[in-house]
Amino acid sequence: MGEANCPVVGREEYLQRQETVRRRLAQEGLEALAVAGGPFYARPGDVAYLCGHLPPFPAAEGEEEVRGSGYAVLALRARDTVLVVDTPHYRADLVVASEVRVARDVWGEAAALLRNVSGLVGCVGSDVLPWEGARRLEEAGVHLEPADFVVRDLRRVKSRAEVELLQAACGCAREIVLACAASCLAGATEQEVGAAGASAGLRAGADFVRYVRVHSGPWSAWPTRWPPATDRVLQKGDLVLVDAVGARAGYAFDVGRTLLVGFDAMPWQRQLVEATQRALSRALSVIRPGVPVAEVVRAALEVYESAGLGPHASPFLGHGVGLETVELPLLRPGSSEVLREGMVLCVEPGVYVPGKGGACVEEEVVVIPGGCEVLTAGIPRRLWE
Amino acid sequence: MGEANCPVVGREEYLQRQETVRRRLAQEGLEALAVAGGPFYARPGDVAYLCGHLPPFPAAEGEEEVRGSGYAVLALRARDTVLVVDTPHYRADLVVASEVRVARDVWGEAAALLRNVSGLVGCVGSDVLPWEGARRLEEAGVHLEPADFVVRDLRRVKSRAEVELLQAACGCAREIVLACAASCLAGATEQEVGAAGASAGLRAGADFVRYVRVHSGPWSAWPTRWPPATDRVLQKGDLVLVDAVGARAGYAFDVGRTLLVGFDAMPWQRQLVEATQRALSRALSVIRPGVPVAEVVRAALEVYESAGLGPHASPFLGHGVGLETVELPLLRPGSSEVLREGMVLCVEPGVYVPGKGGACVEEEVVVIPGGCEVLTAGIPRRLWE
Repeated sequence: MGEANCPVVGREEYLQRQETVRRRLAQEGLEALAVAGGPFYARPGDVAYLCGHLPPFPAAEGEEEVRGSGYAVLALRARDTVLVVDTPHYRADLVVASEVRVARDVWGEAAALLRNVSGLVGCVGSDVLPWEGARRLEEAGVHLEPADFVVRDLRRVKSRAEVELLQAACGCAREIVLACAASCLAGATEQEVGAAGASAGLRAGADFVRYVRVHSGPWSAWPTRWPPATDRVLQKGDLVLVDAVGARAGYAFDVGRTLLVGFDAMPWQRQLVEATQRALSRALSVIRPGVPVAEVVRAALEVYESAGLGPHASPFLGHGVGLETVELPLLRPGSSEVLREGMVLCVEPGVYVPGKGGACVEEEVVVIPGGCEVLTAGIPRRLWE
Repeated sequence: MGEANCPVVGREEYLQRQETVRRRLAQEGLEALAVAGGPFYARPGDVAYLCGHLPPFPAAEGEEEVRGSGYAVLALRARDTVLVVDTPHYRADLVVASEVRVARDVWGEAAALLRNVSGLVGCVGSDVLPWEGARRLEEAGVHLEPADFVVRDLRRVKSRAEVELLQAACGCAREIVLACAASCLAGATEQEVGAAGASAGLRAGADFVRYVRVHSGPWSAWPTRWPPATDRVLQKGDLVLVDAVGARAGYAFDVGRTLLVGFDAMPWQRQLVEATQRALSRALSVIRPGVPVAEVVRAALEVYESAGLGPHASPFLGHGVGLETVELPLLRPGSSEVLREGMVLCVEPGVYVPGKGGACVEEEVVVIPGGCEVLTAGIPRRLWE
């Protein structure tokens, strides 16, 4: 009943993560942690990282007495690590915890576990824990203190097993991109291209394909949009941005390419795409441990500026990727982060000319001594002509 | 650049919703509302309901100064309704608000809009707003008070336009279920069946297919599971639960069926599936305005009990559906809710025998005078032999 041929994070690694976090508690003046995690398709992050649990049920509004379903809480105390879930249908074979408690009211159960802690309880996932959950914990006498940094520092740098998992996830993205490219023909709709991609990713073993963005023609000037694909019919000469987002074995993929409908790029399209490719190459050439993120961003933006495209270049150059699609560090001009060995980054220089069109190429790389290794090397970068 | 042939919620309806909510503020002693919404694939609910905005970017951890991205906040004040979004790439053609502000720090911007409100500010979406966002608002001097009920009551009952949208969404679910049934053959993997379904749903116009659950053989005893589909190979004689979850034009679908690999059901399988069909028919026959939810649940569970399956029947009989997959009311034994005309419900009686297998059929119905209308009537209920 498992996932054949896929790397896994071993039991020992989860225990090690828990111990590392536990050691930090004393240093930080915390007695315990309340770690919040959302459903597998949205913010499972810190709970998944610490114990391997991916909540399977949709997050939803609850009724008066139990507000909010789909969440899990990990109560990490001095002597044990207790997971609280709201369904008995969790993967006991994958979860690493001292105990798992099933409770319809996860906030109440977590409060029962943490209310006798005499000191401060660090909250990990303060951007995931709903206000309702925090209030329930505090009303029960739990003294919550934001403590995201306790886990955030660890998650920034991926272990060997995690890099292998992210590499496997890129395999799904490869199938998605190739299927999109093959179906990106005049007369097809954005939705049809996205469907071909999603199907290929799921057949390749993705847990889920959250969406495949297909932004065609004038929509290619939008780096993000609701909905991810529309019923717009592709025309010969359209630029088409595709962005494959999902996960395999819990680890995310987020890979983008620029396609062209037909084979005759117009000069302005060629300019956009070629500048994007150069900006990407330049950014990757700068990445290595010790380099400030801001320097990588500057390197890419300089390429756009010298191509006369500076005003249309996105200042957002990408982000970390792991158990979630968008993780730290964020690659943006004001960043004070410095690259470290083992960080896995989505690097996505993009240029978006309003009303006209855009181009973006998004690769995933792992920072290694002296440089970076491209995890998406198996996905052709030039798919547009 | 639109969605052809799909119903929409009109501008007037959004304005009416805002006015209805505004009138309630005075009654409840509130000066304004802070409404939180998540990304389109996870909890866009109250923001989408009040102004039509569906946040397009993934929810993610932010950096020190801006914790949490992918959210939107609607500041509904006495004289205006201001939407705060974290990307300029929102659908201005679909949003109904006095003003839209684009800010990287949505919490800070929302605080600036609400800090001069002298009285209490009701929080709508207290199960969506992350603790971090609540803290940022409170630190800025906003006096937050949980006020989900202000919008929750309205969302329970769907308008004519919403019912049409939910009906259109069921059309996507139909294509998913039929594609799964056609590919549910011995030798196929759960992932391949799910891929066929997802592709069909996206081709039929779904905004996204969050997942297609495919639980085969012994896994059919699990009503929920991570991941939604595995690489398990289907065997002749397997029961297979499929559950199609996604949205079209912002409105969710959630439809399930039980399939059989091959044509020869064993007596115990036949018993499970036939009891499920009877439980569903019985539940639907009870649904009409004024009937307590608990009575509907009891009617279905009695069918399982008289079939000797009581101990294995799920007490959770379903839920409302709308802008989110799981909405109120929840159909469960302890419910104090009473059915109202215009409620749209996912009714999903299921029976799950651990280690052996399960069966479930999930229909969507709208409560109408004297009974209910099945929105999923176009999807064959008996697909298993």
